[in-house]
Amino acid sequence: MLVVQKYGGSSLQGPDRIRQVAERIVRTRRSGHEVVVVCSAMGDTSDELIDLAEKVSGNRPAREMDMLLTAGERVSNALMAMAIHDLGGSAQSFSGAQAGVFTTADHGSARILDVAPDRVREVLAQGAIALVAGFQGISRDTGDTTTLGRGGSDMTAVALAAALKADVCEIYTDVDGVFSADPRVVGSARLLDSVSCEEMLEMAATGAKVLMSRCVEHARRHDVDICVRSSFTDRPGTLVSPAVEGGSAQDPVVTGVTHTRSIAKLTVADIPAGPPAPAQILEVFSSAGIPLGVLPDIPAPPRNELAFTVRDTDGPHAVELLEQHRARIGYGAVRCDASAGQVSLVGAGIGSGAGVLATVRRTLSEAGIGIHLVSASEIRVSAVCRADQLEDAVRVLHRGFGLDAATEAVVHAGTGR
Amino acid sequence: MLVVQKYGGSSLQGPDRIRQVAERIVRTRRSGHEVVVVCSAMGDTSDELIDLAEKVSGNRPAREMDMLLTAGERVSNALMAMAIHDLGGSAQSFSGAQAGVFTTADHGSARILDVAPDRVREVLAQGAIALVAGFQGISRDTGDTTTLGRGGSDMTAVALAAALKADVCEIYTDVDGVFSADPRVVGSARLLDSVSCEEMLEMAATGAKVLMSRCVEHARRHDVDICVRSSFTDRPGTLVSPAVEGGSAQDPVVTGVTHTRSIAKLTVADIPAGPPAPAQILEVFSSAGIPLGVLPDIPAPPRNELAFTVRDTDGPHAVELLEQHRARIGYGAVRCDASAGQVSLVGAGIGSGAGVLATVRRTLSEAGIGIHLVSASEIRVSAVCRADQLEDAVRVLHRGFGLDAATEAVVHAGTGR
Repeated sequence: MLVVQKYGGSSLQGPDRIRQVAERIVRTRRSGHEVVVVCSAMGDTSDELIDLAEKVSGNRPAREMDMLLTAGERVSNALMAMAIHDLGGSAQSFSGAQAGVFTTADHGSARILDVAPDRVREVLAQGAIALVAGFQGISRDTGDTTTLGRGGSDMTAVALAAALKADVCEIYTDVDGVFSADPRVVGSARLLDSVSCEEMLEMAATGAKVLMSRCVEHARRHDVDICVRSSFTDRPGTLVSPAVEGGSAQDPVVTGVTHTRSIAKLTVADIPAGPPAPAQILEVFSSAGIPLGVLPDIPAPPRNELAFTVRDTDGPHAVELLEQHRARIGYGAVRCDASAGQVSLVGAGIGSGAGVLATVRRTLSEAGIGIHLVSASEIRVSAVCRADQLEDAVRVLHRGFGLDAATEAVVHAGTGR
Repeated sequence: MLVVQKYGGSSLQGPDRIRQVAERIVRTRRSGHEVVVVCSAMGDTSDELIDLAEKVSGNRPAREMDMLLTAGERVSNALMAMAIHDLGGSAQSFSGAQAGVFTTADHGSARILDVAPDRVREVLAQGAIALVAGFQGISRDTGDTTTLGRGGSDMTAVALAAALKADVCEIYTDVDGVFSADPRVVGSARLLDSVSCEEMLEMAATGAKVLMSRCVEHARRHDVDICVRSSFTDRPGTLVSPAVEGGSAQDPVVTGVTHTRSIAKLTVADIPAGPPAPAQILEVFSSAGIPLGVLPDIPAPPRNELAFTVRDTDGPHAVELLEQHRARIGYGAVRCDASAGQVSLVGAGIGSGAGVLATVRRTLSEAGIGIHLVSASEIRVSAVCRADQLEDAVRVLHRGFGLDAATEAVVHAGTGR
């Protein structure tokens, strides 16, 4: 079996942790598998480097930030190779460029264009362990060092797994896997054995932080099985795979409840009657490249208002843009509410019928939680509420849909997957 | 004018120092010069990385140590590029590989085979400043990251200066330049305006730490002018150049007094009479690749002893080797004296006549300093004495040969060059 293992910064905090991870890697190799390892930078290295850069300069070109930050992964991977040697294993570490991770030239958020891991294959053919610095690549056009942005090391691991046709891509982190809700909010949240890529995508998009959307998207497109698990235990973790079958419209199954505070609710009031104004408003955002979140399925009363969500970081800019177009569109006022939160139910089939949506409304209403906006996709139902009621909303929905351990499900009596 | 500037770790200790160095670089650029910069790792970075590696592993492959250590120079050069941008300058940093520094695959002590700085030239053509990570290169055979060993960043700077046909290679450090003796030992040591490459080579070989021999050798071979100067002041420093003319056998001039404690004195006693035994002893060392230092010009009494110096780190191994061959060679005993020191006078022409040698003997003898061994080359006279008398020896010779500021020279009445 060919296994790609990715270890995050929290799994590499200090020499002792590096040695522990090395033991796991060597154990995997000795059990007969081919092993490719992707290490992130150790612990707080990246933050320390950013801090240093801010002290040195108020004007930090993205190209140079990439040169700076990629040093962190070179260090952690070289150290891991040494720790493996110390255990009698054989290993070689490679930079992103050496491992053939070719990207666009978008410094700070480069996209992987191609992975040509010839040197990784050579090392595997020699029976050794190949280590690849995560988060980094080389621009195909300029030859410069690039970074892949947030979650970049996961991306490196999945892209390598796809290029090498690995049997599994293990993402090691400091939690046991993917949970039915954030365990810090819901004490009875359950560890999921498996999640389909579609569900994981929706969970990532709506607040689950364990995997980034683009990483799951890449895995789905290239048929890579991801296993999210803890580097601190031997628990099996959660399988995220295109092969996992979810529920269906006939038999919907709620997989998890996610939440996020990183949204702002915009309300545009006193809109002129007729279709043009709402269309013009939405056009303002699409031409500015600002993605919109929850939009109500049915116009919310009062009828002359339009409400939707944007990312909280886009909030001020969105208001500014709308104000620029106020005279032309002819609306009355725009309000931005940053104290909003969004709770989502994710599960194959749950958005296609009205049943889940109705249960969400009733469950939240019974708990005294007001909903501003509700929307649903094929496998997701989202509701926007006040931020200070968000965690309550997560808990009542998790319980209400039978996700608490040893609780009968409302929608489906299964034990969850 | 095309200027290569190299800044050592002590010139880059912390964000403030980096900003100060950036100001110097930008000033040089604005005065109309093309500027290529080579930065070492910041302050103690390399020591910290080595410390980390030792904590992680007792078995540290040289290839991985190179991957680890080269991160330090990537960081310092990227930070310097940012600091330059902050001052309104334009700069790009390159790794050794990107700058075309091709080396042998000898990890930890690679030799530069070729420098193809195409990207550096492009940046210069755009009017920007090019920064190159010192101390590192890429193996021409394996494509792996390599390091150049001690003094490696100086080597990078000189090799780049040679490849770019730079007008001068400025080596910035924490001292004002090359002195007539170590100022920590001789308070009245003088800063030298200029030194020939030959003299600098001898000074480096006999204890002057400001430049490494191989760096000066490369400069001499490729006709590069080096200027050693301080990054903390605006003093002009010392020019080390093939064009500097020194003294001659007819008119010898002492340039400086150097010293080192990094030697061990070996004495082989009770050697059988006749030529074979001394030849066999020397052969033991040449076949083991152990370089010998000072050998007496004339056999030292008693006639049945042979004495010479080796590097102190070679001492134990040298004794072990000799003991293995004792029966064959038939000598009586070997002694290793690690508490020896060596003082040297360097200056063109001084070794070719007997005058300087005689003055050295007399000067040291009058100061009550016994000499064990004396040797001379064309431009050097060295004497081995007890380590606890070494600094006295340096001082009396410095004074005796008129090198103290405002002292009449014994050999030559000039004011030094």
